[in-house]
Amino acid sequence: MVNVGIIGSTGYAGEELVRLLINHSEANIKFLCSKKFVEQKYQDIYKNYFKIIDETCVADNLLELSKEVDVIFTATPHGYMSSILNDEVLSNCKIIDLSADFRIKNKSEYEKWYKVKHLTAKYLDEAVYGLCEIYREKIKKARIVANPGCYTTCSILTIAPLLKNNIIDENSIIVDAKSGVSGAGRNEKLENIFCEVNENIKAYGITTHRHTPEIEEQLSLISGKNVVINFTPHLIPMNRGILVTAYANLNGKYDYDTLKKCYKDFYDGEQFIRLLDEDIYPETKWVRNSNYVDINFKIDERTNRVVMIGAIDNLIKGAAGQAIQNMNLMYGFNEKEGINFIPSNI
Amino acid sequence: MVNVGIIGSTGYAGEELVRLLINHSEANIKFLCSKKFVEQKYQDIYKNYFKIIDETCVADNLLELSKEVDVIFTATPHGYMSSILNDEVLSNCKIIDLSADFRIKNKSEYEKWYKVKHLTAKYLDEAVYGLCEIYREKIKKARIVANPGCYTTCSILTIAPLLKNNIIDENSIIVDAKSGVSGAGRNEKLENIFCEVNENIKAYGITTHRHTPEIEEQLSLISGKNVVINFTPHLIPMNRGILVTAYANLNGKYDYDTLKKCYKDFYDGEQFIRLLDEDIYPETKWVRNSNYVDINFKIDERTNRVVMIGAIDNLIKGAAGQAIQNMNLMYGFNEKEGINFIPSNI
Amino acid sequence: MVNVGIIGSTGYAGEELVRLLINHSEANIKFLCSKKFVEQKYQDIYKNYFKIIDETCVADNLLELSKEVDVIFTATPHGYMSSILNDEVLSNCKIIDLSADFRIKNKSEYEKWYKVKHLTAKYLDEAVYGLCEIYREKIKKARIVANPGCYTTCSILTIAPLLKNNIIDENSIIVDAKSGVSGAGRNEKLENIFCEVNENIKAYGITTHRHTPEIEEQLSLISGKNVVINFTPHLIPMNRGILVTAYANLNGKYDYDTLKKCYKDFYDGEQFIRLLDEDIYPETKWVRNSNYVDINFKIDERTNRVVMIGAIDNLIKGAAGQAIQNMNLMYGFNEKEGINFIPSNI
Amino acid sequence: MVNVGIIGSTGYAGEELVRLLINHSEANIKFLCSKKFVEQKYQDIYKNYFKIIDETCVADNLLELSKEVDVIFTATPHGYMSSILNDEVLSNCKIIDLSADFRIKNKSEYEKWYKVKHLTAKYLDEAVYGLCEIYREKIKKARIVANPGCYTTCSILTIAPLLKNNIIDENSIIVDAKSGVSGAGRNEKLENIFCEVNENIKAYGITTHRHTPEIEEQLSLISGKNVVINFTPHLIPMNRGILVTAYANLNGKYDYDTLKKCYKDFYDGEQFIRLLDEDIYPETKWVRNSNYVDINFKIDERTNRVVMIGAIDNLIKGAAGQAIQNMNLMYGFNEKEGINFIPSNI
Repeated sequence: MVNVGIIGSTGYAGEELVRLLINHSEANIKFLCSKKFVEQKYQDIYKNYFKIIDETCVADNLLELSKEVDVIFTATPHGYMSSILNDEVLSNCKIIDLSADFRIKNKSEYEKWYKVKHLTAKYLDEAVYGLCEIYREKIKKARIVANPGCYTTCSILTIAPLLKNNIIDENSIIVDAKSGVSGAGRNEKLENIFCEVNENIKAYGITTHRHTPEIEEQLSLISGKNVVINFTPHLIPMNRGILVTAYANLNGKYDYDTLKKCYKDFYDGEQFIRLLDEDIYPETKWVRNSNYVDINFKIDERTNRVVMIGAIDNLIKGAAGQAIQNMNLMYGFNEKEGINFIPSNI
Repeated sequence: MVNVGIIGSTGYAGEELVRLLINHSEANIKFLCSKKFVEQKYQDIYKNYFKIIDETCVADNLLELSKEVDVIFTATPHGYMSSILNDEVLSNCKIIDLSADFRIKNKSEYEKWYKVKHLTAKYLDEAVYGLCEIYREKIKKARIVANPGCYTTCSILTIAPLLKNNIIDENSIIVDAKSGVSGAGRNEKLENIFCEVNENIKAYGITTHRHTPEIEEQLSLISGKNVVINFTPHLIPMNRGILVTAYANLNGKYDYDTLKKCYKDFYDGEQFIRLLDEDIYPETKWVRNSNYVDINFKIDERTNRVVMIGAIDNLIKGAAGQAIQNMNLMYGFNEKEGINFIPSNI
Repeated sequence: MVNVGIIGSTGYAGEELVRLLINHSEANIKFLCSKKFVEQKYQDIYKNYFKIIDETCVADNLLELSKEVDVIFTATPHGYMSSILNDEVLSNCKIIDLSADFRIKNKSEYEKWYKVKHLTAKYLDEAVYGLCEIYREKIKKARIVANPGCYTTCSILTIAPLLKNNIIDENSIIVDAKSGVSGAGRNEKLENIFCEVNENIKAYGITTHRHTPEIEEQLSLISGKNVVINFTPHLIPMNRGILVTAYANLNGKYDYDTLKKCYKDFYDGEQFIRLLDEDIYPETKWVRNSNYVDINFKIDERTNRVVMIGAIDNLIKGAAGQAIQNMNLMYGFNEKEGINFIPSNI
Repeated sequence: MVNVGIIGSTGYAGEELVRLLINHSEANIKFLCSKKFVEQKYQDIYKNYFKIIDETCVADNLLELSKEVDVIFTATPHGYMSSILNDEVLSNCKIIDLSADFRIKNKSEYEKWYKVKHLTAKYLDEAVYGLCEIYREKIKKARIVANPGCYTTCSILTIAPLLKNNIIDENSIIVDAKSGVSGAGRNEKLENIFCEVNENIKAYGITTHRHTPEIEEQLSLISGKNVVINFTPHLIPMNRGILVTAYANLNGKYDYDTLKKCYKDFYDGEQFIRLLDEDIYPETKWVRNSNYVDINFKIDERTNRVVMIGAIDNLIKGAAGQAIQNMNLMYGFNEKEGINFIPSNI
């Protein structure tokens, strides 16, 4: 049993963490932090917790809070953790950071894309990128886990096996991604209100979205080559789910079985990766409310490209679920504990 | 541990039963029946079960199947169970019937509203109406449980406390109900296709909906009076959830505390009933994916009426969740086992 | 040809006015006012107007603006027009006010429900309630038209014929209304953001919604009796549309034809009222993007009540369309000019 | 004034044609054909036409019907027109075919992708591809116009200017397209019902969608090169709208102004094409219910690719609106007549 705390518990990712951790057999929530709703009852902010959570949100004094728990989940805006983390905190507890602050090893890349100074770059080397299927062994021993972004989780896992095996040209990768609106967070912006989003689709962050360098760095590490991609996210009028449609040139003539074998070998034994059968392609509803990643691909012989498709639930495998999967690894729990949900097709 | 079977497992209520029962610590699914998809793999019908269920749907030979299990859930069209149930089946297993066939004690009322002959009316007396909060003790001993309808569950639980206490006029009850589209089932009807339902609201079954006599019979039993109501269901462009807005004339001048006490006393100790705080009213999202019933009311002094509002998830407390709650009661399991979900606000 | 101006042109109702007036053959838009977006280009606020409107929003100096046009539409928050209107303005131009400020004749009722002082109550008598089908002759001669609310338009038109003919008990009326989200306006409130509204239904303003006294006053005027009602609005996850489901006790035993005749006589010759055929009930999609009001009713012999159902597009007949219908009447244009749209079922 | 008939008037594209043509000042609808609803009143199939259309659907005897009108719109399944068209029909009337039958000049390509024999290939040369902005002069003189597909219209218009000017590599084009559900037609298929589509996104027809050869043939004709593309359509939970996100390698180092000039020159004087300002990207809501095509692009200097984005209303510019635009050209009417709608942002 570990004692856990959540800083940033009143955003959508934070709330999903709360919902999942309550039923985790090895975790005990000690505090819920909020900047905006401090001293308010959590059940007044999210009324689904009526009669379930009686606690009140506390302010986010990281150092003091770090003394109370074994691990802190931080679902905070970028720039927060990188400005506040210190050795004393880390001597008290482990950190699973859902923000972008420790995801990108290259400090200048982080500062360029996020337009803030990274004030605690000394931890960048130590921090482990929490993509469980790739860095499982490192995660087990980590003090700081940088929980991957939602788009990045789906993009990397969809593309990595073919890139790793040198099947696709690293200079040809295009990632066209689509996300439900919960990815935009619980922000009262005009662009997020119902009538602006409903019955509409748009691309955004074209060539500038901050998940781009994160995907590139990880794909570069996996392939040993310098990967630069096109990444275009789109906003879809639905609550949950990310679908990634990725394109790449094949490095030669390949058949279905060869590519399938790459995926199978790469994800051998992985419990949350589902490589769909031939000609069955991922849909976000088939992974909804679960920690699964559904993946498939199709070779286009006419263009000698491969279309790779992946789907996740952005709030679970793309945020809270993966954070818990990381905690499970860090503490030697069953990796599926607390996140072993059957997708709910409706 | 009980062995269970599901007849009608490929409709939306049946699928929800499957999803919940897989994780029930005391239940072991022995077979999945389907009329339409017999001999097809369940995971090909509902792809969320890829790598989770490997079974193939079997045909619905009730008698043979009854020998294999302790209890059968039937999520079948009305008229099926009432035409096929017999003593031999009941000597083999218990039945939790999600159809309407054994809900209405009054055979002629059933036949009038459903326009079919009831061929096994001899079981009507024995069958227990499976509204757990009302008939808990009877359910524990039942061989046949008639699992209540979705609208009826929400309507009865919202109205019963005030009616039971003679606070409201039994001749004045109006139930205006709103349901998500999963209540219409997985049917390829023109009226169910996306563009016909999306961005639209309609009333249907006006004065003729078949849940009317079910609500009336139960409210009559609870109040000891002959209750006749107006019931108007509406179709809402969302997947899940039922909201009931009910109106009734108060039998005198009452204050908030008096009515609140009726509700509190009526539902004392109930774990799935949440009586919201004053001036907080149910929303379907606050009960989504859970077995909770959220209820509140408001006295309108100007008209001396009370507005009673209730919300459930139609597929859980309105169907599969309540069916499992019934099973838990019938077998002495913890009543919350397998259905103790925190609502997911997104 | 009249010159028109719009104050409050950047809310949803204001924008709909702009969209419809551009194509009105007898209207010429002279200015677009905004409080929030002053000196911004209208096409930057609503990008659908790119290459269509080049104008910039001006500040709302009512007196100065009144000199430039024949009529001003005000789609402003309540309390604005009632605090600013004066004789000089009215000597310059006519006013069609889409706010609530001049709808309720009874000053104290207005102040009680809206919780503001009415500073120009001297115009309350003069102002004509702009429900065209009821006050057509008065509207033709009006200087100030109080454009009805969206819920009120639909509720009054659905109920009036039976009430006028003494068919229903004026003390028994219950109005259960459902609205799309555009009715909540273009406000960056947490409760309006997509994930809070989507896949959810809730009631709000229970017994306290401000359209209640407006409906009551009008129904009282129509019936000559003191009408007090229950009114409960609900928020539906769709952009447009209002559906009203109204209930009332019948004053005697009536048949379908008698009630149908009431409706037919009451709306004889009305071009925007569609009395649906027996057993066909209104759906919001059948009136979407049009100025139509679809109405039908069903007698419930079991309870001797009538269920009356009406549907409108809240932004057209419930706001901008009716405002233009009023302008057409005031200036002797064809009543259908500029608003004669065929509903778009998708 | 021309007399027009519609064969296939009860599908979504056919219904949109009806809706638009009713208000076309130069068109007079003579008949509405339907295979499925023959002898039923049109207003019973689409209740938005109550009190607007009193006609009954007739059977589709093309030859007889061709004698009654000047032009027939055919919104029929592929394979219908190609099996039935003949000289006598064409001597009686002009044809605007919304199906795919005469879009692809290369008969064997048509037969390969559509898997039917083309029985009237002799008309393929004569038929004019009805993309008005490209083939305006030919359309004016055509007897047979092949109205382009929805995805194709948006894809071609978005990509053509850069390809025509040799700015992009014709072997590098990837089209990732997203469509609302009305594009799937009014079909009672399981995959189209609300709960299967809502809150979900999926790709479909991956590398096999039939709009692929149509886009390729047209882009090849425009560029004078053999263009082979990747095309991946996706289904989005909304009623209307298509967004195309297209990617291509730049043939050299180009700046924004150079590419912008290509677009401006290519679409000089076009009234339905809107080239958005720098850094403003198309969203389907900004063209909803209009015949506009919104287009913009972004150069990605890191990859030396260009991202091209286009948006249309699939039922208007992608079907019925463009068909009417074609009719306007064929008969010398104002090209905007009957389709000059302001987009409705809600």
